[in-house]
Amino acid sequence: MRLGTIFYHDFELLDAYGPLEMFGALGDKIELITIAQQAGPVSSSAGPKTLADYGFDDAPDLDLILIPGGIGTIAELKNDALLNFLRQRCPHSQVTMSVCTGSALLAKAGLLDGLAATSNKMFFELARSQGDKVDWQESARWVDAGQYVTSSGVSAGTDMALAVIERVFDAELAEQVMNYTEYQWHRQADADPFAQLLNQGVTPS
Amino acid sequence: MRLGTIFYHDFELLDAYGPLEMFGALGDKIELITIAQQAGPVSSSAGPKTLADYGFDDAPDLDLILIPGGIGTIAELKNDALLNFLRQRCPHSQVTMSVCTGSALLAKAGLLDGLAATSNKMFFELARSQGDKVDWQESARWVDAGQYVTSSGVSAGTDMALAVIERVFDAELAEQVMNYTEYQWHRQADADPFAQLLNQGVTPS
Repeated sequence: MRLGTIFYHDFELLDAYGPLEMFGALGDKIELITIAQQAGPVSSSAGPKTLADYGFDDAPDLDLILIPGGIGTIAELKNDALLNFLRQRCPHSQVTMSVCTGSALLAKAGLLDGLAATSNKMFFELARSQGDKVDWQESARWVDAGQYVTSSGVSAGTDMALAVIERVFDAELAEQVMNYTEYQWHRQADADPFAQLLNQGVTPS
Repeated sequence: MRLGTIFYHDFELLDAYGPLEMFGALGDKIELITIAQQAGPVSSSAGPKTLADYGFDDAPDLDLILIPGGIGTIAELKNDALLNFLRQRCPHSQVTMSVCTGSALLAKAGLLDGLAATSNKMFFELARSQGDKVDWQESARWVDAGQYVTSSGVSAGTDMALAVIERVFDAELAEQVMNYTEYQWHRQADADPFAQLLNQGVTPS
């Protein structure tokens, strides 16, 4: 099984690496690869850079896809190369996951039409305004719509990842990962402690 | 203020990126730089690579230092270049933080002698066997010994990072970061839900 994470300039670190920690703990059950429009360095919004193994033109087949969010989402909403890559690849995935504003990209690509989905709570309108045929959930830690699983902001992606591991593999393995990573898994998808912050977007200052 | 994270081959992703997410949310209050023995790509244990901005020979002055753990710790315990870099730099830091088995490296470097410290619970002996003058804490989410703050395994580093933000900056800023990242902060350093797994090291299978 192969999981491809789509990186772009100014992605949010934990959106990508929270889920990748959980999948990475599965060892040889899964191969984690990193993808960007072009292979090579990609800067996070916080500064630290990741290195993309593949570009859009040479990325291998993907069973699972992970799309982080972050301030860079805003520019990518106008990037047809990225939107087209999602349109080509996500429908063939077993599960496509987004974290935070990553669901705005899936919605813009038209891939969430008719499905329930969620996004970062503080900046919810960014996602909602990309797809009026999406059944946007204002209160959800994550939403499992089958092929597409979307999570709320940043840390919620880690909880979603364990839920996807539970569904694709089994609950025992998800619990082993939880213990291995000393992670206090928030296990209820519909319990959202940050729903009250809806559209109250403020950055720490 | 500048935070330098020390990367090495086979580091654990979330050990580094959980704390870096929290510090990164502070925006222009802090500069995050990445360091390895040589500048360039460094592979995590799960596969995805980070890009180190600096090598040990050209890393600038650091106010805060972060040392992740991971399976790669075992090899680094024999790497004098890394141990000497820690011996040179950590005593001049305001705060040096370790996550998971990162405290084994600090202990091996002799930097934790006489101090209270903790480490990953499942693989606790790896750290304990590196320093018999360290006051090892078998039950602690993290231990704040002043200049050195050590956390338990993987996810515990994120809780520690918020506690260090609270101490170095203030509680209001730490809470803003918590909300911004939709993170359910485990705020009690001495409440350790994984202490009962002491030395029961098992990898998910």
